Amino acid sequence: MKTNKHRLAIGIDFGGTAIKAGLVDETGAVLDRVQTATADIQAHAHASGRINAWLDFVGQCLRRFQVGRRRPAGIGVGVPGFVDFSRGFIHNLTNVPGWTHVPLAGMLRKRFGLNAFVDNDVNAFAIGECTYGAGRRFRQAVCATLGTGVGGAVVIDGRLYRGAYSMAGEIGHMSINLHGRRTPEGRGGLETYVGNTRLVAAAARALRATTASGHLAGRRSSLRNLVKNDLKRLTPKIIALAARRGDPLSREIFDAMADCLATTFASVTYLLQPEVIIVGGGVAQSGRVLFDPLRRHLQERLHPLFAERIRVVPAILGEDAGIIGCAALVFQR
Amino acid sequence: MKTNKHRLAIGIDFGGTAIKAGLVDETGAVLDRVQTATADIQAHAHASGRINAWLDFVGQCLRRFQVGRRRPAGIGVGVPGFVDFSRGFIHNLTNVPGWTHVPLAGMLRKRFGLNAFVDNDVNAFAIGECTYGAGRRFRQAVCATLGTGVGGAVVIDGRLYRGAYSMAGEIGHMSINLHGRRTPEGRGGLETYVGNTRLVAAAARALRATTASGHLAGRRSSLRNLVKNDLKRLTPKIIALAARRGDPLSREIFDAMADCLATTFASVTYLLQPEVIIVGGGVAQSGRVLFDPLRRHLQERLHPLFAERIRVVPAILGEDAGIIGCAALVFQR
Repeated sequence: MKTNKHRLAIGIDFGGTAIKAGLVDETGAVLDRVQTATADIQAHAHASGRINAWLDFVGQCLRRFQVGRRRPAGIGVGVPGFVDFSRGFIHNLTNVPGWTHVPLAGMLRKRFGLNAFVDNDVNAFAIGECTYGAGRRFRQAVCATLGTGVGGAVVIDGRLYRGAYSMAGEIGHMSINLHGRRTPEGRGGLETYVGNTRLVAAAARALRATTASGHLAGRRSSLRNLVKNDLKRLTPKIIALAARRGDPLSREIFDAMADCLATTFASVTYLLQPEVIIVGGGVAQSGRVLFDPLRRHLQERLHPLFAERIRVVPAILGEDAGIIGCAALVFQR
Repeated sequence: MKTNKHRLAIGIDFGGTAIKAGLVDETGAVLDRVQTATADIQAHAHASGRINAWLDFVGQCLRRFQVGRRRPAGIGVGVPGFVDFSRGFIHNLTNVPGWTHVPLAGMLRKRFGLNAFVDNDVNAFAIGECTYGAGRRFRQAVCATLGTGVGGAVVIDGRLYRGAYSMAGEIGHMSINLHGRRTPEGRGGLETYVGNTRLVAAAARALRATTASGHLAGRRSSLRNLVKNDLKRLTPKIIALAARRGDPLSREIFDAMADCLATTFASVTYLLQPEVIIVGGGVAQSGRVLFDPLRRHLQERLHPLFAERIRVVPAILGEDAGIIGCAALVFQR
């Protein structure tokens, strides 16, 4: 491990697939990292078993990072769900069963004697991007992450805005169609239109489409070759690749997704008029096949006074964004 | 004029129909008021003529308020359009022609030697309600005004939030249907569904409806009697009266409007999670025929974690809300 005169923090990005931990310094540099599969933690039958396994993993990280030699300023954790940041309390994790009503920050403090903070993962991502990444130059920003669903976070006057009860920023549940599909979160929320599974489903549907008389009438598309005619192999990455190579179907799918995103971004711009909307997450790495139609549709959906002032940019911290953002939770206190 | 040991300010509410000016003290009490018809000002042929006539009216108000005897802290103006608050500069007024690129605060300062502030009228309304009215107890609030269109304003940590370029809070342009009607502001904005003219048009349409074969098949409704069968007499007030008396058609119309409002309020709640949404403007005085379905639809459109925390309340400052809010622009500096 390199010596370093900056303060250090542990950032832990608790995702549905992997738990990534990193030792991060105050410049945003990741000095070391470890990860484990979320499934290994979730294999424990009881909630208490899962929480203990999770804390054991943190203990391993601390040993590996040789924290004994140089005391870090604290531990920051980002989790995929509803959190009360002020108490470090997890209400509920959307896609990780058994993490309900967990006072995680208190548990970390007690077990490791370190300062600890727990926040929504997209909030941590936003703090990271606005401290070290694409949002560095801006004071008013909105962040969106495109993954399984759509996450969001609001930055006001350079600080994360959590709302009155610590749950603000849920742009994935903002409605883009009052008559849309019903979910536990309402009707026609952005997430019912946009996300990895929607993208893949739209492609599969178009390739598989049948006529009224039952004949196969699926669209021609270079996607067929890319997945060797096995629709189960479709991923957002492959659709983005085909779109970049000019495949009309893949471009249409990205265009439709971009228009749904633009609808929400226009509403966000009318309500908050940020300087910038920062877009992260896997699909955001698709580049121009996403950002070109996204910016075009956003312009169409805004009055010129708003359209000419809003910027839409990709996040830049990449794979480490989560870890860095979680560490930034510690540094910003 | 009563003597008063509090600071005083002049509040000027510049509406599309009337210009209302008042002398307001720091407790929010209106000590005196004057008003004039906007049409009289707009009768002048050139923009400079209108601006001069407007400034002359302010001069009359100052004399009437005997401002010479006791110097007020300043003049606050609320205007129906896009404003750069920091410069006191009017970009454009939506329904009042000829008020484009007007540095109004500077003009007031120069002519009257008083501190002057110019803001969007809904922002002024929100500052008034959050200082003296329904928002007094709250730090995080969103305000909506129901009139010809739908105005909005965002209060964060007890202060009005104007966004990066002073135009935030435009909830009337937030889309509730990505495939909705196109306007210069986008597609399917809340204002294309909600507002005085929409309400009246919906009632007239239902009463006038014809069958495919051309026979009159308009709905039975006590509205017919209330307007003596003259659909041109329909107003939001009359529809609210009929709804209060149990007229099914009028209740349906209010229910549909409330559901559109609830769609936007749900999106606002997901993004900002305020403690309260304060609803003002003429239609908001309809009482339970609006607020009962509004609250019910909002509950249906939110996840319980959000639904159980959000309040929707009517504004309470009434007719003087504009004047008081404009004066509050001065006091809050």
